Amino acid sequence: MKVKCIRSKGIAHNSYIIESDGEAAVIDPRRDFGVYLNHLARNELKLKYIFETHRNEDYVIGSQSLSKLTGAGIYHGSNLNFEYGTGLSDNDEFYLGHLKINALETPGHTDESISYIVSIPSLSDEAIMVFTGDLIFAGDTGRIDLYGDKHEYRLSSMMYDSIFNKILPLGDGVIMCPAHGAGSVCGGNINSMEHTTLGFEKKNNPSLQVSTKNEFIQMKMKEKHRYPPYFKQMEIYNLSGFHGSKHPPSLSPLSATELKKRFSQQSHVLIDTRTPEDFSTAHIKGSYNIWLDGLASFGGWIISHNDNVILVTYDGYNCLTKAVKYLFRLGYDNIEGYLKGGIESWYLDNLPVESISVLTVDDLKSKIDSNEDIEVLDVRDDNEWELGHIRGARHIYVGDLESTELDISHNKTIVVYCSTGKRSSLAASILKRKKYKNVYNLLGGTTAWYKAGYELI
Amino acid sequence: MKVKCIRSKGIAHNSYIIESDGEAAVIDPRRDFGVYLNHLARNELKLKYIFETHRNEDYVIGSQSLSKLTGAGIYHGSNLNFEYGTGLSDNDEFYLGHLKINALETPGHTDESISYIVSIPSLSDEAIMVFTGDLIFAGDTGRIDLYGDKHEYRLSSMMYDSIFNKILPLGDGVIMCPAHGAGSVCGGNINSMEHTTLGFEKKNNPSLQVSTKNEFIQMKMKEKHRYPPYFKQMEIYNLSGFHGSKHPPSLSPLSATELKKRFSQQSHVLIDTRTPEDFSTAHIKGSYNIWLDGLASFGGWIISHNDNVILVTYDGYNCLTKAVKYLFRLGYDNIEGYLKGGIESWYLDNLPVESISVLTVDDLKSKIDSNEDIEVLDVRDDNEWELGHIRGARHIYVGDLESTELDISHNKTIVVYCSTGKRSSLAASILKRKKYKNVYNLLGGTTAWYKAGYELI
Amino acid sequence: MKVKCIRSKGIAHNSYIIESDGEAAVIDPRRDFGVYLNHLARNELKLKYIFETHRNEDYVIGSQSLSKLTGAGIYHGSNLNFEYGTGLSDNDEFYLGHLKINALETPGHTDESISYIVSIPSLSDEAIMVFTGDLIFAGDTGRIDLYGDKHEYRLSSMMYDSIFNKILPLGDGVIMCPAHGAGSVCGGNINSMEHTTLGFEKKNNPSLQVSTKNEFIQMKMKEKHRYPPYFKQMEIYNLSGFHGSKHPPSLSPLSATELKKRFSQQSHVLIDTRTPEDFSTAHIKGSYNIWLDGLASFGGWIISHNDNVILVTYDGYNCLTKAVKYLFRLGYDNIEGYLKGGIESWYLDNLPVESISVLTVDDLKSKIDSNEDIEVLDVRDDNEWELGHIRGARHIYVGDLESTELDISHNKTIVVYCSTGKRSSLAASILKRKKYKNVYNLLGGTTAWYKAGYELI
Amino acid sequence: MKVKCIRSKGIAHNSYIIESDGEAAVIDPRRDFGVYLNHLARNELKLKYIFETHRNEDYVIGSQSLSKLTGAGIYHGSNLNFEYGTGLSDNDEFYLGHLKINALETPGHTDESISYIVSIPSLSDEAIMVFTGDLIFAGDTGRIDLYGDKHEYRLSSMMYDSIFNKILPLGDGVIMCPAHGAGSVCGGNINSMEHTTLGFEKKNNPSLQVSTKNEFIQMKMKEKHRYPPYFKQMEIYNLSGFHGSKHPPSLSPLSATELKKRFSQQSHVLIDTRTPEDFSTAHIKGSYNIWLDGLASFGGWIISHNDNVILVTYDGYNCLTKAVKYLFRLGYDNIEGYLKGGIESWYLDNLPVESISVLTVDDLKSKIDSNEDIEVLDVRDDNEWELGHIRGARHIYVGDLESTELDISHNKTIVVYCSTGKRSSLAASILKRKKYKNVYNLLGGTTAWYKAGYELI
Repeated sequence: MKVKCIRSKGIAHNSYIIESDGEAAVIDPRRDFGVYLNHLARNELKLKYIFETHRNEDYVIGSQSLSKLTGAGIYHGSNLNFEYGTGLSDNDEFYLGHLKINALETPGHTDESISYIVSIPSLSDEAIMVFTGDLIFAGDTGRIDLYGDKHEYRLSSMMYDSIFNKILPLGDGVIMCPAHGAGSVCGGNINSMEHTTLGFEKKNNPSLQVSTKNEFIQMKMKEKHRYPPYFKQMEIYNLSGFHGSKHPPSLSPLSATELKKRFSQQSHVLIDTRTPEDFSTAHIKGSYNIWLDGLASFGGWIISHNDNVILVTYDGYNCLTKAVKYLFRLGYDNIEGYLKGGIESWYLDNLPVESISVLTVDDLKSKIDSNEDIEVLDVRDDNEWELGHIRGARHIYVGDLESTELDISHNKTIVVYCSTGKRSSLAASILKRKKYKNVYNLLGGTTAWYKAGYELI
Repeated sequence: MKVKCIRSKGIAHNSYIIESDGEAAVIDPRRDFGVYLNHLARNELKLKYIFETHRNEDYVIGSQSLSKLTGAGIYHGSNLNFEYGTGLSDNDEFYLGHLKINALETPGHTDESISYIVSIPSLSDEAIMVFTGDLIFAGDTGRIDLYGDKHEYRLSSMMYDSIFNKILPLGDGVIMCPAHGAGSVCGGNINSMEHTTLGFEKKNNPSLQVSTKNEFIQMKMKEKHRYPPYFKQMEIYNLSGFHGSKHPPSLSPLSATELKKRFSQQSHVLIDTRTPEDFSTAHIKGSYNIWLDGLASFGGWIISHNDNVILVTYDGYNCLTKAVKYLFRLGYDNIEGYLKGGIESWYLDNLPVESISVLTVDDLKSKIDSNEDIEVLDVRDDNEWELGHIRGARHIYVGDLESTELDISHNKTIVVYCSTGKRSSLAASILKRKKYKNVYNLLGGTTAWYKAGYELI
Repeated sequence: MKVKCIRSKGIAHNSYIIESDGEAAVIDPRRDFGVYLNHLARNELKLKYIFETHRNEDYVIGSQSLSKLTGAGIYHGSNLNFEYGTGLSDNDEFYLGHLKINALETPGHTDESISYIVSIPSLSDEAIMVFTGDLIFAGDTGRIDLYGDKHEYRLSSMMYDSIFNKILPLGDGVIMCPAHGAGSVCGGNINSMEHTTLGFEKKNNPSLQVSTKNEFIQMKMKEKHRYPPYFKQMEIYNLSGFHGSKHPPSLSPLSATELKKRFSQQSHVLIDTRTPEDFSTAHIKGSYNIWLDGLASFGGWIISHNDNVILVTYDGYNCLTKAVKYLFRLGYDNIEGYLKGGIESWYLDNLPVESISVLTVDDLKSKIDSNEDIEVLDVRDDNEWELGHIRGARHIYVGDLESTELDISHNKTIVVYCSTGKRSSLAASILKRKKYKNVYNLLGGTTAWYKAGYELI
Repeated sequence: MKVKCIRSKGIAHNSYIIESDGEAAVIDPRRDFGVYLNHLARNELKLKYIFETHRNEDYVIGSQSLSKLTGAGIYHGSNLNFEYGTGLSDNDEFYLGHLKINALETPGHTDESISYIVSIPSLSDEAIMVFTGDLIFAGDTGRIDLYGDKHEYRLSSMMYDSIFNKILPLGDGVIMCPAHGAGSVCGGNINSMEHTTLGFEKKNNPSLQVSTKNEFIQMKMKEKHRYPPYFKQMEIYNLSGFHGSKHPPSLSPLSATELKKRFSQQSHVLIDTRTPEDFSTAHIKGSYNIWLDGLASFGGWIISHNDNVILVTYDGYNCLTKAVKYLFRLGYDNIEGYLKGGIESWYLDNLPVESISVLTVDDLKSKIDSNEDIEVLDVRDDNEWELGHIRGARHIYVGDLESTELDISHNKTIVVYCSTGKRSSLAASILKRKKYKNVYNLLGGTTAWYKAGYELI
């Protein structure tokens, strides 16, 4: 028995390959499924089952392509009308080499959520491992807000039962394999442990330290999560099984001149994935700045599935391939090209660049202390805002900024901040597109502000 | 400018990736095209062109799948009615980054054969590299027998013109990149150099050391090549563009019992890819023995595209994956499974094994000298037979053995030989299937026989 | 926090890399330490600590080379006078990124055995993972016989305390990472689980299902293990820190003629790693047959550290590299070369081969039933022999055969068996070297015998 | 016969592995020799020879370490008193599998320079490949200035003879394998072809288009090359065989606070390898900016072998590993650590950052046109300066800037430019260290200036 975790950075997603005696199962395969095929080939394995723990909202699932190529069956929960695969109920049972895999319905995150329990009948009837999907994570539990406010009570209540009456009773010594790690938009406080057990979570997962079901429900219903617009598309894709391209789009190098020509057309979106510092010095007018590792989390707020995307990345370092992969996983198939040679090729061609000034926290403090007429904009999320923000700031979440009508004069100086300077750089690039001219990005954000000993209210 | 050669063992095929400034072209892609996609992704390249040098008879070409996934156009000669791609004529011209690629029609091996010349206009008008397909190889020229006897004169004549009037005049300093290396069924005497030039070949390629066109034609028309039955299928596939599975079939582990059950059905072919020595000691009744690296050359003589193939390989060493890949390249998509655990699992289950005895050359010499009543069968090809064989032997090429009605009594002792003991082990396995009971394989074949100082006539 | 297990096939050894925030620790590094350096480089990690769980008897440990190249400190138990590194006591504490690692003395397998407990202080005081060395395995506990009979009581008693009073109290939810997996000579019944927990082992490890300390001690003292002669050398090397070559010896291709010349000299040992079936048909006189995956377990019974080793392997399949690696891990640095082209090149050169006949279990049954005058030799280990053997057989463990004076006439027919045919093929090759002429290997051994329904007494 | 080119980016160095029949030779191995060992192991090769074409001045050669680990002999020219290896003369001959390798003394670049000719005696007496070291490159010939002015005539003269009387006569069809590709400091105009032949070079290499020996000598003596200070150290190391660390130093993550503490000590050098744009926005006071791919060419002008180096790189993208590798190849073993988390961790900690402003070419043009009192500094090399520079600029080569006493007032505004903005960013960082406060970097340098249609004189 071997279990291999395939981690997808960006969306912080975990999929798993279970293998035993030449047979394999994959749990929640991602769209770029080459990683599974390579593993199967290298280890001479036959893929027998594809298990899904739930529909998934944050990425396009690769089950159907993988199934078509390998002949493996797809299985998932039965409380949702999937247009493909087979619905399972409690105790449905599978054999994989010398392993037994049992389905266990564990609704809560969604109605159809299901867990998979692995045991080795020849050794013991007890479970050795459980795949919990988005029910429990290391240090957190799944969000229950996806169906809207009306369903939060119902889902929280089911989640309590799933966790406390079905999963935890499997035993402390069971290794727990969740569908997400730290950084996922599917949980707020997932920690960075890559290995945990039901016993460890029972004692240490903050979200499980409740004494009554009601306490659990109240806690869950107070949580605040964001729902990026691309989720809708993921739900549609994953319900029907996505039939788009099976391979990340190929990368067309565009010269500076060619990029300029295309970008002037409508429905083209220019995403610059360099660091905020780099973007600050010189960028192409009209481009969004989403730092590379934030692309999977924030691309979905900015890019529509109908847009033609053009990328500006560092030249080299494989940033381009990473960016395309991140977007591919979110179902973006139309990446039209990238600026060959990076931003340097743009300015070597003497094409015009724009800049965004940065402020240090000391700079901002002086401005505030001297009552300069500035607008301070906090683009962090609600939880962060509530934990403490700079006095006088106004709060608009970065994800909402594009669609928000701002009642700020275009001549006013705006200082944008987040907790580091990354999300605020995206915000600054949005403001520049909205014709604001005097936009500053706060270097280090609230983290540096706090370090400097300045007040957060 | 970079050129990478992708060598496919077994069929000894060379495909190439040319790259320049973020753009790439592939020449004669093989069916398992993952190798190109990986290279493109790793090096952040856009595939722009797929060039075919000719239809290819010895493997399934992967152009169409690769084109579909990348959007690259397919190009080939215009003297054949391909159902896909674009036909080219002399001097058609392509730009790839800072490279220029020119088509040059070079019929001879086939009518539509075409070569591709690479130059770097910014440096020089002269060619630096030429892709010659099956026209010239290192140490040999392509076969001209594929259309049958009637066409040999015509093709040889065209080949002479293509080589002497079109390719060699490009200049001695041009690097030559042929479509095959040593071991290919597309040429008899290709040598093992992986790098050569027109200058080197002009002086040293035995097949170019002729003083007149007529001498060349006579030489070519005397060559003897075998035409394995699967070639027909390759031609059909490659003319229309093959729409079969794009991915090697996955590998079903079969227990000894399960294999026994399936193999008893009709239309199942059991291929044992172990060494002749291993096969000799113990094998499953009815199985063919084709040593692993011979599978690409001899599988096509034995396996029909309608058969269900079951494999016996060594357990481990990645033999299985190799075997499947070799067969996949020849268009065999129905590999039903393999014996899990190898032959050991068969005999551990106390299922019956058969053996084939081996003889040393001394053993055979004694038998012959003492006039034992044995049949000695030479299964090498015509050229080898004519260069010298054991006195009293009968000649049937291994590829013809399956389909040949033998006028040999089933009780007679048969000693089979080739040049080493590998092809003769395949022959021995065929004879066993034909109910011959006393079959011996000559260990070391004519090579050992000759070393021992025995006569070859 | 990430933990990566590096599995060394052959010796079934597990070493581990723990990483957190750019820092790493390695536990029980093997001699061919490139795997760690590559991982460190690829993940941009600084190696901070090298932890040893105990001296190790079954392979050469790579701590010192790794320490020299990286500057990391070496740590181990203090109850043995290591000539390098730092001795630890209970509760010695290390910090690695945001992890805490605590030493816990857990004698039993050896006096200096020590475990390492990992916790994440920011999340919890409780352990999440424990590295148990050779104290507990998945499904077994470590052997306690290494110091000889006199110490077995003492060691078993300490082992009980270490397990039941120190390790298990850490909690059911602790992930357990032992130093060996299935197939190790350091435990008899280790199972093939690659992931386990203290909770799972507490309930399911057969060796922990005792009700009293005394019961545990009695059980342990009844176990029988073999002590291969090379262990002595490993203990010497690992006590002082081995200063031999840091890199597997390079591979000299020897032509058949050259091999013949060298092998005729003294102190050369010829190891043929092909399968028993292959060896059976043709091998070089005087060679030992140890199938490749058995080389790590049985090479140490046959090869002295002063021998010059020459290898015969399959040509291709990377068998050679594997064989050299297996031997390198056991401290064998003088691998002089290998037969280029494999056994085929030997017989193509018309050099003489020998063969060993195989018998099926039916063949043997007939011989026994018809009272043929044969010697039947069982070369399995004591436990296997006691569980059931063929009537009339004599028992000599394969590892003892080389050094045992046999009172069997050289003309007698000997049939050797084990449980499959592999160890018996080694035994047969030893007997051939001892000038026995009529040696047969039983294909399928007791497994096939039992399947055939024949009696084991 | 296979030849694999190992390209080392940064120094644009080519080393080669030649293999034939299980034996291998390496030509000019680099210091981080793992790449050769891996290749040898993966392909089951025995390293037989290590050939050096000359001493090498631009990197530390790895011959001795490689020799020690593999037992292969080292060979080089005999006109220099190497403290290791064996000196060769014309026609010394080696056999590698079925290849013959001949030494050919080809002085010119240095006195001891030697070439290696490969032929395949079984096919032809003629050469198929030649390894020319620093004698000829694709599109250029080696520099002849390393021994100082007095020797230029002598070396040029010898170079002419080596090329025209020894190498080119080998034949047009010979594949040429030089020791450097485009971007090397060992040649000024090497082009980006990765494959060339003597025939192609003879016709197209600008440096070979001379009609007399004297013309060649005059041309060579007019060339201008820079001699970075680290060359001296390379020559010492390579003459004696370097006994420093064999493995790139490991990477210590330093927190912002820790870095601050260490950097305040003497003899610490802080190298920031981010892009000029990134550095411009925020960097640590006192750091040098050398963009990553320029580190191998410009690190040697800045860093002494006694300095303790601390690195600032992007977090992720494997920039760190690349930077360490580049420096390791130049003999820098004391890389003390790197800023964990990149520059972000510095400013999140509210530690002070500095910035350098950029100017566009339009900005600079206005300043010049309006006669602002600025100093314009051209830091390109002599050849570039002479081909055209901005009117009024002063010329100091970037490599000389650190050691040059500037007679510019510290209050004056200085605009630095090169051809792109990279070398000028290094120059700007040097000026900042020299206490110049108003330093501007010209974005796009002369390339953008020229594109804008402004004059270069």
